[in-house]
Amino acid sequence: MTDVLSRDPRTGRPLERVATESTAQDVDRAVRAAAAAGPALRDPVRRADLLRTAAALLEKSGEEIVSTADAESALGRVRLTGELARTCYQLRAFADVVEAGAYLDVIIDHADPSAAPAPRPDLRRYKVPLGVVAVFAASNFPLAFSVPGGDTASALAAGCPVVVKAHPDHPATSVLCARLLRAAAAEVGLPEDVVGLVHGFDAGPELVRHPLTAAVGFTGSVRGGRALFDIASSRPRPIPFHGELGSLNPVVVTERAAETRAEEIGAGLAASYTLGMGQFCVKPGLVLVPEGAAGDAVVRSVVAATVPSGPLLDPRMREAFLAGVRSRAELPGVTEPLGAGESGDDTTPLAVRPGVLSVAASRLADGGPYEELLEECFGPVTVLVRYASSAERDTVLNALPGNLTATAHLGVDERDDVAADLVAGLSAIAGRVVVDGWPTGVTVAPAMQHGGPYPAATSASTSVGSTAIERWLRPVCYQNVPDPLLPPELREANPLGLPRTVDGVPAS
Amino acid sequence: MTDVLSRDPRTGRPLERVATESTAQDVDRAVRAAAAAGPALRDPVRRADLLRTAAALLEKSGEEIVSTADAESALGRVRLTGELARTCYQLRAFADVVEAGAYLDVIIDHADPSAAPAPRPDLRRYKVPLGVVAVFAASNFPLAFSVPGGDTASALAAGCPVVVKAHPDHPATSVLCARLLRAAAAEVGLPEDVVGLVHGFDAGPELVRHPLTAAVGFTGSVRGGRALFDIASSRPRPIPFHGELGSLNPVVVTERAAETRAEEIGAGLAASYTLGMGQFCVKPGLVLVPEGAAGDAVVRSVVAATVPSGPLLDPRMREAFLAGVRSRAELPGVTEPLGAGESGDDTTPLAVRPGVLSVAASRLADGGPYEELLEECFGPVTVLVRYASSAERDTVLNALPGNLTATAHLGVDERDDVAADLVAGLSAIAGRVVVDGWPTGVTVAPAMQHGGPYPAATSASTSVGSTAIERWLRPVCYQNVPDPLLPPELREANPLGLPRTVDGVPAS
Repeated sequence: MTDVLSRDPRTGRPLERVATESTAQDVDRAVRAAAAAGPALRDPVRRADLLRTAAALLEKSGEEIVSTADAESALGRVRLTGELARTCYQLRAFADVVEAGAYLDVIIDHADPSAAPAPRPDLRRYKVPLGVVAVFAASNFPLAFSVPGGDTASALAAGCPVVVKAHPDHPATSVLCARLLRAAAAEVGLPEDVVGLVHGFDAGPELVRHPLTAAVGFTGSVRGGRALFDIASSRPRPIPFHGELGSLNPVVVTERAAETRAEEIGAGLAASYTLGMGQFCVKPGLVLVPEGAAGDAVVRSVVAATVPSGPLLDPRMREAFLAGVRSRAELPGVTEPLGAGESGDDTTPLAVRPGVLSVAASRLADGGPYEELLEECFGPVTVLVRYASSAERDTVLNALPGNLTATAHLGVDERDDVAADLVAGLSAIAGRVVVDGWPTGVTVAPAMQHGGPYPAATSASTSVGSTAIERWLRPVCYQNVPDPLLPPELREANPLGLPRTVDGVPAS
Repeated sequence: MTDVLSRDPRTGRPLERVATESTAQDVDRAVRAAAAAGPALRDPVRRADLLRTAAALLEKSGEEIVSTADAESALGRVRLTGELARTCYQLRAFADVVEAGAYLDVIIDHADPSAAPAPRPDLRRYKVPLGVVAVFAASNFPLAFSVPGGDTASALAAGCPVVVKAHPDHPATSVLCARLLRAAAAEVGLPEDVVGLVHGFDAGPELVRHPLTAAVGFTGSVRGGRALFDIASSRPRPIPFHGELGSLNPVVVTERAAETRAEEIGAGLAASYTLGMGQFCVKPGLVLVPEGAAGDAVVRSVVAATVPSGPLLDPRMREAFLAGVRSRAELPGVTEPLGAGESGDDTTPLAVRPGVLSVAASRLADGGPYEELLEECFGPVTVLVRYASSAERDTVLNALPGNLTATAHLGVDERDDVAADLVAGLSAIAGRVVVDGWPTGVTVAPAMQHGGPYPAATSASTSVGSTAIERWLRPVCYQNVPDPLLPPELREANPLGLPRTVDGVPAS
């Protein structure tokens, strides 16, 4: 049995032994227990109760959660207090989604013997839960994208039990949160096993391979995510894999924007690429800045506004960050307006310093080693790409892999067709388009889309916002089923008061 | 260059040389041309025009289409005339879907600086087309699931250009229909290349591998579909593969139903399993009939009502059908209440005779060679499984792979909790649940779900009905984008009059 240790990322030193790595038998037991608990989740009232009670219990243990998460993530109490609030808001928002019932997408077509081109039977459709959802916790959000995060909340809301694979960067937080979620289940009269937790690298593939696992939610790296995606797709019975793998989140600063808003843009970029020590999936990692004096002012501003050092989530990530910056900086033609690197001191020996790289857009056309600049470098670094013309700029944009976000900074008077074309072009390569703002800060709201073309996401779905629930459901149609034998959601009298589309017309 | 021949399935003889098999260069050219034509499909008015004009042109050439399709499919003029009407109805129904605009799922959340847990920016979400869709035509529906079928109609409705891989069983019909779809495009001022056509076995993998192919629609066998699914999933950039691969479509006849409705059920089953010579994806292939006198009456009825011989779609399918029946019939304990087999005569030398197999439910628990009985046998044969108890019946149901449909035949007085449990159990293994009817006949309607757990479908989507359009779209969110730079679908004044959800409330 291999111990699972909680570690201090500031020093790399172990804090405590939290658990042991899950064996194949442990994973099997967790998935079977979750599957057995699944039918209890059929009752929507109970599900909404579960989500609200979970939020309340997490808040009640807020102090302990924030301390535990800070000790093993070094993300800081302010950020983690905010993340906990966001997590609880999200759980309650999904309780509201369950109660509103629109996610069931109820469609009723009454029988019509005279319908063209053929008589129509009575047809009633709604959505049912897929089954056990495997959730892979993210390193960079110990709460909002981990055990009590959006994947878990949306899956429970859909009626799916969950088994979470804890992230090794915050096992103590994971154990604490799982205990609270299971307590919430017990408190509302549900089996505790609607939420399970497993640990250890090998538990991941086991979880995805398990015959009773019905779908996967993943947030992490391209390498790890793709390996699990491949397992999910090559099973005898393939299952949906909703993964968020990696994103450069390009930003375009137009000539006009640079001329009129250089100071503000540089400061905003500095704040955004260093937020959470650059450990956000929506960190702006590539910024297209015009060549010339106006662009130079943007560069000076971002360098001046960049704040000092801090630790990353774990020593392995720190190594990958330092190596990634080094290999990029060594490419001919790449300069370092602000050098990133090691900056440890006695209290935080593993700290790093944020940095800014710069390269001419024309270099990227060379491909080969320059393709590394089109890959995400996780941590506080951003690459400024200086372009000489909008054609050069668009060539870079079109060479990018898929993104979670794409941002345009425009001049205040840029509201013309050229700007509209730029916005349309950005929507072709990303799931979210931001104008005159920054991609960091993903609002939990119905209209949010947190996903995008591969590798930003492995499916067309979102992992944030109300529609994230759609990932864990499949439609079922009932044909000529007598009313007493229908699920209550589809009965003629609409006993649950659900919104529905009846004979083509919205009704409730 | 290998010739593509149209053949008469009644005799196996070639009718005419229709085309040559597409080379890798041909496929590349077709996909690039479709991709280049894609932007023209952005205009929803033009798309609705295209779909309606296509329906009109198909109807105008109805006589030629039906004759051509009958010559190479032997499905008969009555069936094909009906299929053409269904195909045209479907094209027009998707034009209506485009105009109604609900499929765009427009969600607007206005900015709210005082929102909890964090200030909310202005967020606006709708759906955009994925890009070029590869459509694999089905053998058994030369029209409704082929060149002008539901995949093509829903993809064009979504704004995606289409490249169809013709099915070798009806190349002449495919060429004719593609010509008419391209003519419809030209007539409404769109590039003809919004629809392309390729031929030949090798064109399939080429089409799925092509970097500009963005999604796949497939109807066919488990073997062929899974091979293409694996290619789609293992691409450097994986793409969604919406495949309908195979289904047993179980039917449960309860004791009470057998006691009271044996004659009617047997006659209905005979009509359903032999419809289109058993070449429907929703053919009832496994029927659970109670042991004893009442069940025996059902068996006698289905045998008595089974109609005589006919040809299958092609000689290869005929061989597979005969071999599949033979190997099943040879299993110890399997009987043949009605022997299927060869029944050719001078005019139709390749005709076959429908048949009924029977086996005790207890045998299926043996697994091993009996697992073949849980696989689809394409063609006019159905397997009656005689059960001694509802426990035995449920054991068989739970051992089945995923299905497009599951059907219950109940007694007229069976409207109790036991019957409700049976219906609920069927909904766990299928995409559509039918009571006291037959799965054949898939209504084109908003509430239809033509899909189901794997291998019935490779995704949670449907290939029939309005929601089939969802397969070809992905959401994009616009954050703080100034109104003049938004796509018209998302502008504040709602110039297109779309239904939308604004700040959580349905509005238009």
